[in-house]
Amino acid sequence: MPANVEMDKIVSLCKRRGFVFPSSEIYGGLASCWDYGPMGVELKRNVRDAWWKAVVHERDDVVGLDSAIMMHPRVWEASGHVDGFADPMVDCKSCRLRWRADELEKEICPGCGGDLTEPRMFNLMFKTFMGPLEQEANIVYLRPETAQGIFVNFENVLTTSRKKLPLGIAQIGKSFRNEITTGNFIFRTREFEQLELEYFVRPGTDEKWFDYWVKERFDWYVRLGISKDNLRLRQHGKDELAHYARDCYDIDYLFPMGWSELEGIANRGDFDLTQHAGASGREITYFDTESNEKYVPYVIEPSAGVDRSVLAFLIDAYDDEEIEGEKRTVLHLHPDLAPIKVAVLPLSRNEKLTPLARDVYRQICTGFVTDYDDSQSIGRRYRRQDEIGTPFCVTVDFDSLEDKQVTIRDRDSLAQIRVPIEELNAILEAKLKGEAFDSSSLWATRQK
Amino acid sequence: MPANVEMDKIVSLCKRRGFVFPSSEIYGGLASCWDYGPMGVELKRNVRDAWWKAVVHERDDVVGLDSAIMMHPRVWEASGHVDGFADPMVDCKSCRLRWRADELEKEICPGCGGDLTEPRMFNLMFKTFMGPLEQEANIVYLRPETAQGIFVNFENVLTTSRKKLPLGIAQIGKSFRNEITTGNFIFRTREFEQLELEYFVRPGTDEKWFDYWVKERFDWYVRLGISKDNLRLRQHGKDELAHYARDCYDIDYLFPMGWSELEGIANRGDFDLTQHAGASGREITYFDTESNEKYVPYVIEPSAGVDRSVLAFLIDAYDDEEIEGEKRTVLHLHPDLAPIKVAVLPLSRNEKLTPLARDVYRQICTGFVTDYDDSQSIGRRYRRQDEIGTPFCVTVDFDSLEDKQVTIRDRDSLAQIRVPIEELNAILEAKLKGEAFDSSSLWATRQK
Repeated sequence: MPANVEMDKIVSLCKRRGFVFPSSEIYGGLASCWDYGPMGVELKRNVRDAWWKAVVHERDDVVGLDSAIMMHPRVWEASGHVDGFADPMVDCKSCRLRWRADELEKEICPGCGGDLTEPRMFNLMFKTFMGPLEQEANIVYLRPETAQGIFVNFENVLTTSRKKLPLGIAQIGKSFRNEITTGNFIFRTREFEQLELEYFVRPGTDEKWFDYWVKERFDWYVRLGISKDNLRLRQHGKDELAHYARDCYDIDYLFPMGWSELEGIANRGDFDLTQHAGASGREITYFDTESNEKYVPYVIEPSAGVDRSVLAFLIDAYDDEEIEGEKRTVLHLHPDLAPIKVAVLPLSRNEKLTPLARDVYRQICTGFVTDYDDSQSIGRRYRRQDEIGTPFCVTVDFDSLEDKQVTIRDRDSLAQIRVPIEELNAILEAKLKGEAFDSSSLWATRQK
Repeated sequence: MPANVEMDKIVSLCKRRGFVFPSSEIYGGLASCWDYGPMGVELKRNVRDAWWKAVVHERDDVVGLDSAIMMHPRVWEASGHVDGFADPMVDCKSCRLRWRADELEKEICPGCGGDLTEPRMFNLMFKTFMGPLEQEANIVYLRPETAQGIFVNFENVLTTSRKKLPLGIAQIGKSFRNEITTGNFIFRTREFEQLELEYFVRPGTDEKWFDYWVKERFDWYVRLGISKDNLRLRQHGKDELAHYARDCYDIDYLFPMGWSELEGIANRGDFDLTQHAGASGREITYFDTESNEKYVPYVIEPSAGVDRSVLAFLIDAYDDEEIEGEKRTVLHLHPDLAPIKVAVLPLSRNEKLTPLARDVYRQICTGFVTDYDDSQSIGRRYRRQDEIGTPFCVTVDFDSLEDKQVTIRDRDSLAQIRVPIEELNAILEAKLKGEAFDSSSLWATRQK
């Protein structure tokens, strides 16, 4: 499906259906901060869980980590962030707006055409003071990336997990960058959540593993429903490579504002472990029992963002359709990502239907994330479930009281099938695992 | 089981087995910051998931939220945190150590006996600057609690979720308090993770719901394996109640340092919504279609900590046992909380056993979080799995090559049973759901 939707429509759906709200909205909002509502928090959880399952749980060469946001300031000296993690900033002398110098096409203010100051370097790390005294010795930074938490724990993880190389360490968590320019909804925010893997390998095998992870990560997005047409791989040019990187690919997505980075996969060589070994005075090496060699591992880093993945999944799933003369907005989300898996909808709010519908709800809700909705017309309730991407609606009607059967409606095909309540969980489970996308012979009738 | 273990033993196990490491350890550590290692991150995920399942997914009167850590500064003025979230602090004039005045038993320095300064109030919120200018207008705070993110989103959630009261909004996330005194391992840290529910009800029904949630939350810990003997309910005295609270119970756990708060359940009345209505100039009320009344909801707040829950679960599960003349350390963690559900252990590393053991691992690992370990003796590998609380070990031996059966060993009873590989997943699934704790007739032989 083409990602041809305007960002405004996504922002509007997100607000309307409880995916994403402007942060602190009752106080006028806070620049570039967003809060995830009831549907957004479920979608985000599902993105995190899908990543963790693919990268950690289904592999025995990767383990997890959850390091603190506040780390020793020397970590950021060793990593190069204190000295080098800065953008050139210019101010307009007329209108006072501030811009990133390296993003300007002309040497005048894009806002008002005024003259600009000379560029000054501005460090992107948020800083605060730990303990009651606001003095130099008490400065701590909010981490600008989760990666360094992995590097400084490399030895502890290696020792306690008793694993051999290649070994990956994965982490999900918040990071903070005091960006001068933010925007495009949740694409670039100052507070954001990362999905980072540092995969440590023997030098000489790094190019093979680099290629492996580029492919693996690209395929992950496709498996979860993003169209290949809206994804591209882009290799960084030599002049574009970060100082620590030997090679880097971006996985770009065709966002409404154009191709933009969804994930970066970098070959960081031994830069990070060597820096921390030097700065801490510790030997950080790996002894390879097979080759009888000691070396500093190289590291391959696939680094993705939760928030921009959520945005890409929303955009790619979004469609305004006209079906049999009726318009609907629908999110064709992969069942693993859909916030709600099943909605139980009694045909109407009625003293006979309600008890049975509640029973059906209770039967399902321990197995799947389930919604119960008996307000408004059945048509409006279907539309609402379509807009939040619920793969299946279960309708309880008056016949259900007699035949103990209910109707399952498929979000994408709109096909309906009548099934016994006692088989409902098993059928839904199978369908949510993927059979749902087949035009299976089970789907008998098309919705009127 | 009595929680009679010393904290040192827990800290040592956590380091040794990869649950918790001192943060930034290679740089000497950072005061009161801790990193969760491969086992810790899984345990923490399981605690979060168990809470979310019980509080959100299995109920249709609670929805989730994930609001930003950085919020508009006016949120913290309205909530009372800017003026009132402070502790009295004194300095020793001799040794310069700093203390909380309200925690001192005498008016001299507990460190050196020196004279102390007059108490000064110290605000516990971390502050930083958003945007490049370090000026008053750009101050933002790191949230000291997740609760306010819920209150300021109350209207947005109510409107988009189309739910009626009583309605709960649940949130899991990091909060930050610049505590003067920290300690007791992960019990009190400056960066910590909260499990907060704000349950909005009609005034007049609040006492009933308060009692309900006190019981519900107490039972949650018991269901997940914490001994009732190590839990107590403690009602706050009138002089102890926070200014916003009409009533409050603590769920205390018998930690090694004594009874300490695991969770607080407060009846906050309409304090928060009224404060935000006043400060934002918006009417924040609920129109009850059944009674045809408009009112400001009261709110019941069960507020727990991920980190101290993790600590309590570890302590309560810990045991040093002597069984048939052999000593072992074991974590009797509830299967839902155990970091690893099943370990596949070939009897030895052997070219015949390895392929079959890998097949068994691959068969299991898509269904359960599974470890594969073929290093060292089988006895040492059992001990390791006991120490990380793995409920079941699956041993692949030379007979398995012939009879296509493997042995399941139960962590708690040490009983072993022989089962066909093709039935393994179904048997493990049943056992992990609770039958595992029965001394079922299936368990035939006792481990030698």
